Amino acid sequence: MQRGKFITFEGGEGAGKTTQARLLAERLRARGLEVIQTREPGGSPGAEVIRNIVVAGDAERWSSRTETLLMYAARSDHLERTIKPALDAGRWVVCDRFADSSRAYQGAGGGTPETLIEALDVAVVGDDQPDLTLVFDLPVEVGLERAFGRGLFETRFESKGLVFHQKLREGFLDVARRHPDRCVVIDATGEVEAVSERLWRAVQERLL
Amino acid sequence: MQRGKFITFEGGEGAGKTTQARLLAERLRARGLEVIQTREPGGSPGAEVIRNIVVAGDAERWSSRTETLLMYAARSDHLERTIKPALDAGRWVVCDRFADSSRAYQGAGGGTPETLIEALDVAVVGDDQPDLTLVFDLPVEVGLERAFGRGLFETRFESKGLVFHQKLREGFLDVARRHPDRCVVIDATGEVEAVSERLWRAVQERLL
Repeated sequence: MQRGKFITFEGGEGAGKTTQARLLAERLRARGLEVIQTREPGGSPGAEVIRNIVVAGDAERWSSRTETLLMYAARSDHLERTIKPALDAGRWVVCDRFADSSRAYQGAGGGTPETLIEALDVAVVGDDQPDLTLVFDLPVEVGLERAFGRGLFETRFESKGLVFHQKLREGFLDVARRHPDRCVVIDATGEVEAVSERLWRAVQERLL
Repeated sequence: MQRGKFITFEGGEGAGKTTQARLLAERLRARGLEVIQTREPGGSPGAEVIRNIVVAGDAERWSSRTETLLMYAARSDHLERTIKPALDAGRWVVCDRFADSSRAYQGAGGGTPETLIEALDVAVVGDDQPDLTLVFDLPVEVGLERAFGRGLFETRFESKGLVFHQKLREGFLDVARRHPDRCVVIDATGEVEAVSERLWRAVQERLL
């Protein structure tokens, strides 16, 4: 059996990742592929328990280093119990946020040393890197306004202020520059349909 | 102000660490030292929340790798919010379990690669290694019988079987051999008073 493909959606708040992940999953299913949709932090029963403690509470509840370790603990469980079994069974996995969110949120935004994040990535993700990472990019003000407008200010991260979110955006673009083999930057401005077409072209070029 | 000393208690189940930690703290206080008693996993509000998810549930709830990451997340919070502030304020810290329990439980017992544990230890514990580690040693059967007799079979770890607990014992003795600068093996068989005298001699020789 051919191993499934692993597609991750990355980017700051209000970029439309969740909607686009759903649309992509539908589009892939319409081509006859078996697809599971999942998300981080979370995506397995254990990882959802960890999610509950990491996204709740005030912005300074956890240091960036502790947050990194909790995120990789959740990622470890998610990979072992959801992602790898699905890929091994030939299913495609569409995941809303993955390891690049640690690089951006805890690394570029939070100041966790890159050496720690990359050591964790080798130990936890290892060879299970995404086949394709879609990096949703848009001006920080637009994204936060969208997130705010939708009432999505639900996590500690959204309350961290504009400077933090600027660092996030630069962090994600930096990841894309460093991993051109798997990353495509998607212009996330404009209507849902326009963004959906941009990312579908990337999926077709890279994976189909 | 002189930095306080950091003393950790390590060993398998039923070794009497908790009782002995209390007795040692009392003895140090009687000499006029300021002492805080703490424990792992836990020891700070955030770390206690992590403890609750890591010690509960069935034995296979978390893989050993995920468990290692959760333990170091708790340790990161515990160090930042409890241990380092106390040491910096000149207090002595007596801690029931610390990083060597990860080496034994998740490493020797659970099979987590040593490279991951040591990378985490450098990133999280770094230069804040214990000044003295008391490694409580006793036959596995004696320890488990004591733990069982006291109704302390409260965590996932105690339910992992005799082979696991044998690996633990060897894991702790191995840590002691590799870190003779800070580790003293304490014979944990016999009466509370006898064990207390053995460890007091070690504390006097190493720290007073």
